[in-house]
Amino acid sequence: MIEVAVFGAGRIGKIHAANVARHPQARLRYVVDVHGPSAQALADAHGATVAGIDEALNDPAVGAVVIGSSTDTHADLIHRAAAAGKAIFCEKPVDLDVERARACQAAVEKAGVTCMIAFQRRFDPTFSSLKKRLDDGEIGSPEVLVVTSRDPGAPPVSYIQSSGGIFKDMLIHDFDIFRWILDDEAVSVHAAGSCLTDPAIADAGDIDTTAVTIRTRKGRLCQINTSRRAAYGYDQRFEVHGSQGMLQAGNVAPTQVVSHTAANIAHDLPEHFFLQRYRDAYAAEIAHFFDALTAGTPVRTTIADGIKALELAEAAARSWREGQAVAVSI
Amino acid sequence: MIEVAVFGAGRIGKIHAANVARHPQARLRYVVDVHGPSAQALADAHGATVAGIDEALNDPAVGAVVIGSSTDTHADLIHRAAAAGKAIFCEKPVDLDVERARACQAAVEKAGVTCMIAFQRRFDPTFSSLKKRLDDGEIGSPEVLVVTSRDPGAPPVSYIQSSGGIFKDMLIHDFDIFRWILDDEAVSVHAAGSCLTDPAIADAGDIDTTAVTIRTRKGRLCQINTSRRAAYGYDQRFEVHGSQGMLQAGNVAPTQVVSHTAANIAHDLPEHFFLQRYRDAYAAEIAHFFDALTAGTPVRTTIADGIKALELAEAAARSWREGQAVAVSI
Amino acid sequence: MIEVAVFGAGRIGKIHAANVARHPQARLRYVVDVHGPSAQALADAHGATVAGIDEALNDPAVGAVVIGSSTDTHADLIHRAAAAGKAIFCEKPVDLDVERARACQAAVEKAGVTCMIAFQRRFDPTFSSLKKRLDDGEIGSPEVLVVTSRDPGAPPVSYIQSSGGIFKDMLIHDFDIFRWILDDEAVSVHAAGSCLTDPAIADAGDIDTTAVTIRTRKGRLCQINTSRRAAYGYDQRFEVHGSQGMLQAGNVAPTQVVSHTAANIAHDLPEHFFLQRYRDAYAAEIAHFFDALTAGTPVRTTIADGIKALELAEAAARSWREGQAVAVSI
Amino acid sequence: MIEVAVFGAGRIGKIHAANVARHPQARLRYVVDVHGPSAQALADAHGATVAGIDEALNDPAVGAVVIGSSTDTHADLIHRAAAAGKAIFCEKPVDLDVERARACQAAVEKAGVTCMIAFQRRFDPTFSSLKKRLDDGEIGSPEVLVVTSRDPGAPPVSYIQSSGGIFKDMLIHDFDIFRWILDDEAVSVHAAGSCLTDPAIADAGDIDTTAVTIRTRKGRLCQINTSRRAAYGYDQRFEVHGSQGMLQAGNVAPTQVVSHTAANIAHDLPEHFFLQRYRDAYAAEIAHFFDALTAGTPVRTTIADGIKALELAEAAARSWREGQAVAVSI
Repeated sequence: MIEVAVFGAGRIGKIHAANVARHPQARLRYVVDVHGPSAQALADAHGATVAGIDEALNDPAVGAVVIGSSTDTHADLIHRAAAAGKAIFCEKPVDLDVERARACQAAVEKAGVTCMIAFQRRFDPTFSSLKKRLDDGEIGSPEVLVVTSRDPGAPPVSYIQSSGGIFKDMLIHDFDIFRWILDDEAVSVHAAGSCLTDPAIADAGDIDTTAVTIRTRKGRLCQINTSRRAAYGYDQRFEVHGSQGMLQAGNVAPTQVVSHTAANIAHDLPEHFFLQRYRDAYAAEIAHFFDALTAGTPVRTTIADGIKALELAEAAARSWREGQAVAVSI
Repeated sequence: MIEVAVFGAGRIGKIHAANVARHPQARLRYVVDVHGPSAQALADAHGATVAGIDEALNDPAVGAVVIGSSTDTHADLIHRAAAAGKAIFCEKPVDLDVERARACQAAVEKAGVTCMIAFQRRFDPTFSSLKKRLDDGEIGSPEVLVVTSRDPGAPPVSYIQSSGGIFKDMLIHDFDIFRWILDDEAVSVHAAGSCLTDPAIADAGDIDTTAVTIRTRKGRLCQINTSRRAAYGYDQRFEVHGSQGMLQAGNVAPTQVVSHTAANIAHDLPEHFFLQRYRDAYAAEIAHFFDALTAGTPVRTTIADGIKALELAEAAARSWREGQAVAVSI
Repeated sequence: MIEVAVFGAGRIGKIHAANVARHPQARLRYVVDVHGPSAQALADAHGATVAGIDEALNDPAVGAVVIGSSTDTHADLIHRAAAAGKAIFCEKPVDLDVERARACQAAVEKAGVTCMIAFQRRFDPTFSSLKKRLDDGEIGSPEVLVVTSRDPGAPPVSYIQSSGGIFKDMLIHDFDIFRWILDDEAVSVHAAGSCLTDPAIADAGDIDTTAVTIRTRKGRLCQINTSRRAAYGYDQRFEVHGSQGMLQAGNVAPTQVVSHTAANIAHDLPEHFFLQRYRDAYAAEIAHFFDALTAGTPVRTTIADGIKALELAEAAARSWREGQAVAVSI
Repeated sequence: MIEVAVFGAGRIGKIHAANVARHPQARLRYVVDVHGPSAQALADAHGATVAGIDEALNDPAVGAVVIGSSTDTHADLIHRAAAAGKAIFCEKPVDLDVERARACQAAVEKAGVTCMIAFQRRFDPTFSSLKKRLDDGEIGSPEVLVVTSRDPGAPPVSYIQSSGGIFKDMLIHDFDIFRWILDDEAVSVHAAGSCLTDPAIADAGDIDTTAVTIRTRKGRLCQINTSRRAAYGYDQRFEVHGSQGMLQAGNVAPTQVVSHTAANIAHDLPEHFFLQRYRDAYAAEIAHFFDALTAGTPVRTTIADGIKALELAEAAARSWREGQAVAVSI
């Protein structure tokens, strides 16, 4: 049984805490959050205890930490947890600054602790089934990946101002999908972008709509299109075209009801946002983390993956600013 | 907090026990099963205790029982649980014999206890969403219901011999869907049937393929087609045609992967069988039961519903045997 | 080159005339219609001549007639065309009276002329592809057929009064689909029905909503549900369940546009009615007729098929009136 | 009635000739082709006459020409037809050389004749329905266009060598779709590409797989992904994301048969290639041309459109060669 401290009692922290509580090999021992009442409520819901950072990390009974607090706390917590010899499960991104992220990686490696970065999409039933079928050769060798990634609506501008920009905040997931699905690394990145949904985003120095193209070492091509706003909800699709066919990952609907009326034939909109859409993925990634710790096997999404996605995000941001393709060697 | 005894530690008992354990207002106290090791394993999994029937029913702390044992035990357990003043959640059918089922209803009413019959399909997200939209008037007044209900494969003949026949064993769910969706009662039932999948089923006096037509008081029409075997898995669809449109409830797929190859465009088969297909429905029906007990509100599927579905099954069986439509007054 | 006389310059006559004109082995020579201006307009459109019945049938150059005039004229025209030795293509039904239809069959057989009854659905690309795949064994042996057949709206009551009733007027197509797809003959027919869309239809002694069940010699089952009115348009689907799978024939949409908005994910309604839905089928059936005449091979839908569908319609009507299943030997 | 000369009796010439013959305001008078037997066969099929270029263009009865001969003949035929005062319908591209194409435009404008470039996709029922719904405001203002365009298989390398390269030969249609759907002009173009399907294509100096990004004056973004080979057939989809939703244009299937077997749920592959996929579009574009000539109204796809698509193709080819985005002012 692995005793766990969860850092962050917000939206994602609650999900992780519940999944920890449900895992047969894990036990939620501590909840840590700067906001006391949130920490208390989450701890109470799972029979855990509220603690400070030091208390949680100094408790030798704690075997693993789950970091779901705000991005600016990740690096420090990784350093401290690594130093304390705890296994680490951390939300993306490692840090908004690549150098600081690399220092985290060095610390983790030096400490020899497991560190999993939470790219939950790799654990989604649809996405992981597609990946398995691709690896099984169903469509031959992959050649082109098209990723569509749209949020139902932009976050508040205050969030955007500290988000690191759309490439690090939103597309980082898509960059990880790219690396995972094509099983290849980028040699060049081109990013175009516009601010089309809200001028306040442009005022914050950011964009809300992007079109990224990546070329890989093997000559494979990837196109990513993203928007901060889709009137119809959360749009998370991709398709991979290969030498012998194509595999598509579609959106997930809450129900299979179809109506026929004088207006049209209507299907459900997709699951509204990531908390619903990736509900099973969140459970599966936590399960994978504790299963791997228990079995002593590697985790599937490492801090190295986290840094490579970040490097792609930096390259894309630079390409967008400079209006030119950027060569990368990752 | 309602203390609960679960009767039956088999396939469905395990599901109910896990859902009881997960409900915030319920606590699994006892597991009862004639097969000791099964009872012990299930009790251990949820921190409960193995008990005999009397022990469980005589414990005044127990507020509710969940009956998931074999059909021939239902009536006796309902009588005893009602006499003990326990709220009852019982798998369908109440009993294979309508008279015995009616006696159960009388006992429940006399005791004044809640008794919910587990027609889990009413709690399925797709089906209940369709029902709500129908009630909201999206397609006007319902006129025709077409139900397709096919199992992936027939159970062993030994099961069929004691099943009460396909109408009571398999179509009982479809008869409940009919009453629920059309919100109306039958005036006549016609059933045709054949044994097409396995001659051993005919030898057991049963059929595996049926085509039922029901006409209601309001002149609405319902057609049900069923088979004990579908090569492609579990097929659970229905559509209701109304004065202003149609609503369809489709099958549920495990993933949203679509492949395009030289052969075809291929989608996932449906969830394989009821344990997967109705996973959410099983959780929702248990939640409804304890929510209703906690709130003191009625349950949505009563023992009266269980008996009416049984009466339709008897009428259909008679129609099939006699080759003629049967008038019913339910 | 086969010279052709078309009888009837109405909606369906125009379609047939255009398809005759397009066929490389046929030439439209005469148009016959009691309404002179309609006949003239249609003849002009294709460089043909207006003629009376006798003139058309007495012209030895005429090799074939296409009968698309009103139902009450069919039998007489078949008799006269057969006597004149012309090949006959006739719209369904042969006649509303089975005895008169049988007399037509006798006349045709005595004359030794080809007589094709226009069950165009057998020539629909979707339906005929399904049939071929069924015959090729893709789903093993067929066991259950479910037919959904709904018109966008009821015809005028004046039409219904002389239509022969819904079973002969509307379901006759579905009875032919049943015989064609299951490749088997009925042993019993049960029909339930209601008048739900317009009381004037009941006043005319007819119904607008039916639910028919047929059992075949081989024990196969067929369910047909029909309505005179579907708010969403023309609904023409069927599915056949077999020992190794299921084949479904879906509706045809005018375009493949899908919209995602805040309301829903919306697809096109089906093609509105039979003139659009069966456009390709009408062309294919005429092509088949002239191809068969040219090659000296049999036509695929004979007058015997027309009579069998009519017999099923009579049986269904009787079942509906009497409220009981009807044994048939066809 | 407009008398027509068709240049080119090959694959596309045959389609155009048949559609000319079917149009009520057009009459096919001449077929011109360097290969005599092909010209004769096509002329015979429609009751037309074989002629040389001069004969056809010098006949004052001829009102319009349809140019479906090889690309290298287009410019010369346009010049001569314009000089002869004939209305011109010409296959894309105008010419592989932009300067020569501009000279054609000048000649056409000087002569004051109608010149339609055959971007048939604008006349496809699905695409034109989408465009109309977009113009009607169904999804607000368009922001992002994603175009997927894949051929079933690459043409012979001999064809590729004289094709002008993938951007002018294949993507020219997609560039026209871009301009038409977004109703905007490019300010920058970035193209990545690879040769993944056949090394012989690389040896010919071309690529078979591309990923293009276009940014418009209004900041809209377009991504085009193309491949010369799709194992599953001809893939012609696009989707436009707007401020209030998304519209998708899907592939067209030959039938609506769906099979369920133990393997999967399978749908038809798309129509195999452009001759089938755009059958209705080819008919509609010819009809539009003659309708416009008859009514004296402008044609919807002019020689200016042809040149702008060509300019985009040149910019994309340059971007691909130089590995950098290219600024354009069209």
